[in-house]
Amino acid sequence: MTIQSFIPPRRTLMGPGPSDISPQVLQALSRPTVGHLDPLFVGMMDELKQLLKYAFQTENEFTIAVSAPGSAGMEACFVNLIEAGDKVIVCRNGVFGERMRENVIRAGGEAVVIDDEWGTPVSVDKVAQALQDNPDTKIVAFVHAETSTGAVSDAQALGALAKQYNALTIVDTVTSLGGVPLKVDEWQLDAVYSGSQKCLSCTPGLAPLTFSSQAIEKIQSRTTPVQSWFLDQSLVLGYWSGEGKRSYHHTAPVNSLYALHESLVMLQNEGLENAWLRHQAMHEKLKTGLEKLGFTFVVEEAYRLPQLNAVYVPAGIDEAKVRNHLLETYNLEIGAGLGALAGKAWRIGLMGYGAREENVALCLRALEESLTQ
Amino acid sequence: MTIQSFIPPRRTLMGPGPSDISPQVLQALSRPTVGHLDPLFVGMMDELKQLLKYAFQTENEFTIAVSAPGSAGMEACFVNLIEAGDKVIVCRNGVFGERMRENVIRAGGEAVVIDDEWGTPVSVDKVAQALQDNPDTKIVAFVHAETSTGAVSDAQALGALAKQYNALTIVDTVTSLGGVPLKVDEWQLDAVYSGSQKCLSCTPGLAPLTFSSQAIEKIQSRTTPVQSWFLDQSLVLGYWSGEGKRSYHHTAPVNSLYALHESLVMLQNEGLENAWLRHQAMHEKLKTGLEKLGFTFVVEEAYRLPQLNAVYVPAGIDEAKVRNHLLETYNLEIGAGLGALAGKAWRIGLMGYGAREENVALCLRALEESLTQ
Repeated sequence: MTIQSFIPPRRTLMGPGPSDISPQVLQALSRPTVGHLDPLFVGMMDELKQLLKYAFQTENEFTIAVSAPGSAGMEACFVNLIEAGDKVIVCRNGVFGERMRENVIRAGGEAVVIDDEWGTPVSVDKVAQALQDNPDTKIVAFVHAETSTGAVSDAQALGALAKQYNALTIVDTVTSLGGVPLKVDEWQLDAVYSGSQKCLSCTPGLAPLTFSSQAIEKIQSRTTPVQSWFLDQSLVLGYWSGEGKRSYHHTAPVNSLYALHESLVMLQNEGLENAWLRHQAMHEKLKTGLEKLGFTFVVEEAYRLPQLNAVYVPAGIDEAKVRNHLLETYNLEIGAGLGALAGKAWRIGLMGYGAREENVALCLRALEESLTQ
Repeated sequence: MTIQSFIPPRRTLMGPGPSDISPQVLQALSRPTVGHLDPLFVGMMDELKQLLKYAFQTENEFTIAVSAPGSAGMEACFVNLIEAGDKVIVCRNGVFGERMRENVIRAGGEAVVIDDEWGTPVSVDKVAQALQDNPDTKIVAFVHAETSTGAVSDAQALGALAKQYNALTIVDTVTSLGGVPLKVDEWQLDAVYSGSQKCLSCTPGLAPLTFSSQAIEKIQSRTTPVQSWFLDQSLVLGYWSGEGKRSYHHTAPVNSLYALHESLVMLQNEGLENAWLRHQAMHEKLKTGLEKLGFTFVVEEAYRLPQLNAVYVPAGIDEAKVRNHLLETYNLEIGAGLGALAGKAWRIGLMGYGAREENVALCLRALEESLTQ
């Protein structure tokens, strides 16, 4: 049987990611491939570092994109920063906190888990108590914006708290970067990773990553090698460093990096604060419309992420059937619930290029039609 | 300072990879992104598995693409198959054999290293001796086509030998897949990984991977978890399985997988045997031309890869200057020497879409002009 070329339809992506991608970024993706050691490509990587520093609001010299999805970015933080026996406080208020705990265990660390209910933020008080009870804590790990619930946690307070106890922070900003305020340096965050396919509106497959000088010191003072060769950032550093000779580590995903560069140029041109305001404005509009349709939000207003709107599925509705109808009739994707919210909630994303008037209008109208069929 | 969009030139890529990419594959790359759980995308992934099985010449149910570069494909094999203390024979005749050794150590295995000179194939006799001396060997790891030297090893003989001693094989086919005969099932190979950016002529960033049922059994009988969460193939399997419900592991690099699908459709349409013949024919032509220019090959004719031609740099030539001249004047990239061959050899790739008459002609003429300036 002969397999044919795959021609996808044009969907409107309003799930938890990948988000809608601008034609400009897709065009960048398909530009001619050059060698990964080509001087012009090396120059592009230097620009990419600068653009990522802007997005993360950091001066960290080590600011790169891991050549793999966000979950590899997460793993890069844990395997580089943890040595066997290190105590790590892991805040778990959704799917990705649990994944962090998995990472701690597999990296040989000791996890102290702080649980908060799904849909609520990480409790700063509980973390303060845990730090007091565990003064030998090396790292505090938490998710800034939980993609599984749409709740934002107070990264600034958690960052300051960890510093009081001389602990480093590992922070998941997969869904927050570019969508809500995130200030790595001002908030004193140490190892911060993200994903390309959320509010940056790039194609999935890359994980922006930044390490503070304290995180670098912890890596450099390791007495055992990092368990992963691919994610050993002391090796990767040689590849991304701007100084003359670039040592070969792995073949960079050239075209994906073109796309990330372009999406960050768009962010730079719009301005980070303007992007945050746009996400908020589109969220307000969507919220008003959803509430008119009778929806209630999973997350309290004070902790709600504008870019990820988790709402309860109305009683008596076959949620999978509605999502399918939206996809087949309107080419509109919204997200299912994940983990504890599976079958109970939808997740409507307004991320990056997806946070636009036409998307909000389509989503509200299509949902209204689908629910009143 | 405002950073502008990056507009790369059109290079002819004749290094060790990334290879020249056809416009058809670049076009596929820029098709509209759909969700990674979209039913249409799931269907494309099933086709992709079928196409990869054809390329690998295997019926292995577990045949996928790792969402990261070839070096992550390598690591996926080692961390899944090795448990602490497992003895692994590692054949080292170039850069990538050494990287395998690194992987064994970091995965907690015991490496028995078999060295062969750079530019020569792995000695089957030495491996036989090592297996005899180490009957408790669990795994034999070797590189089928050494990208650092251009030498091909006898994967069929090594596969059969390992089976005699009840050992599994881990085989690097990054540069061989699609370029020279590789028959995973017939040769009884167990864990075989490759890269998207060599003879498949896709963009860099993906690692095709196949596990035999014996490899799967070894993974399923593990008593300790795989040290990497991202590369834990028992979790990834749930995502790639064709059976109805697809469990979420990580967000697949949607557009890169479009491109891999397209490059494999091209391979299917050409026919694997025809692709092998084309690589051989272009190599013959290049070889004749290079020898006329006075070049000598690093590897003896019997073990020479058609797709990677390592030749010694003529005496008295500043090799970096010539490569730079080729790049700047002709937009032609050839590869530098790596490791022991750094500064001494060039590596001229004829991979996938790059194995074409016009590339051979350009390379020979441009080299001739550059050397006689």
